[in-house]
Amino acid sequence: MPSLFWEDFKPGRVFEHGPRRLPRDEMIAFAAEFDAQPMHLDEAAARETMLGGLAASGWYLCCILMRMSADAFVLDSSSMGAPGVDEVKWLKPVRPDDELRLRATVLDARASKSRPDMGLVRFGFELFNAAGEKVMTLTTSLMMGRRQAAAS
Amino acid sequence: MPSLFWEDFKPGRVFEHGPRRLPRDEMIAFAAEFDAQPMHLDEAAARETMLGGLAASGWYLCCILMRMSADAFVLDSSSMGAPGVDEVKWLKPVRPDDELRLRATVLDARASKSRPDMGLVRFGFELFNAAGEKVMTLTTSLMMGRRQAAAS
Repeated sequence: MPSLFWEDFKPGRVFEHGPRRLPRDEMIAFAAEFDAQPMHLDEAAARETMLGGLAASGWYLCCILMRMSADAFVLDSSSMGAPGVDEVKWLKPVRPDDELRLRATVLDARASKSRPDMGLVRFGFELFNAAGEKVMTLTTSLMMGRRQAAAS
Repeated sequence: MPSLFWEDFKPGRVFEHGPRRLPRDEMIAFAAEFDAQPMHLDEAAARETMLGGLAASGWYLCCILMRMSADAFVLDSSSMGAPGVDEVKWLKPVRPDDELRLRATVLDARASKSRPDMGLVRFGFELFNAAGEKVMTLTTSLMMGRRQAAAS
């Protein structure tokens, strides 16, 4: 039984996690599999690009954000997944071996009209690098089971 | 030298790729690393969830979409990456060993005001399963180098 239900996600509540280091070899292995653009794969080629040096694929950052959210609260919640993502912004390059911190803020919560056993919780997620700079934001709504449904 | 530059992405142009199979073991390995919710990890637990059985993490589908886009046109283009993602919708569960097809449609293209060497191209991406059902959509803009900048 999870400890966090829809009722526990009040607007303004914050969950934090990290730091989590992004090892160079894992960052490059991800790029080789899913996003083999030069700025994510090769230091010399990356220096010639807008990013000015090797930087994580934005999709890798999404996956890391998911993992950090799972560890922060999702795996201890009644999460039923998400219908999608409202918006992602990649603000600054994330470098190999940087350490990221996650902040997830509840923006709003609403009951489902069609399913009384669940509600939606909209989160604003932010990732910060070791220097404290915001490197990414992501907004999405998670479907959460309601406590009364779990108890009945 | 890539063969596709900003000038080549005219609204309405379509790029397709696939089918690409999503092997069960790779789907589960991804979930174990990044999104260890029961519906993405364990067949029996997944049967008790909204998804009605084991289904890919939406983030895995984003990564597969990126890889298929890379193979379809991104790695043969002057792509400089993306500032973010406008919207993602996960429409239907994607099952182990399903085969996905990608369709990427150019929605619009505009020159950059601040950087004459690049422009933005907005794409609508769609993924379809083997039954032809649309399982995911994603909208985002890629930064693309201009042909005249590459030639000079």
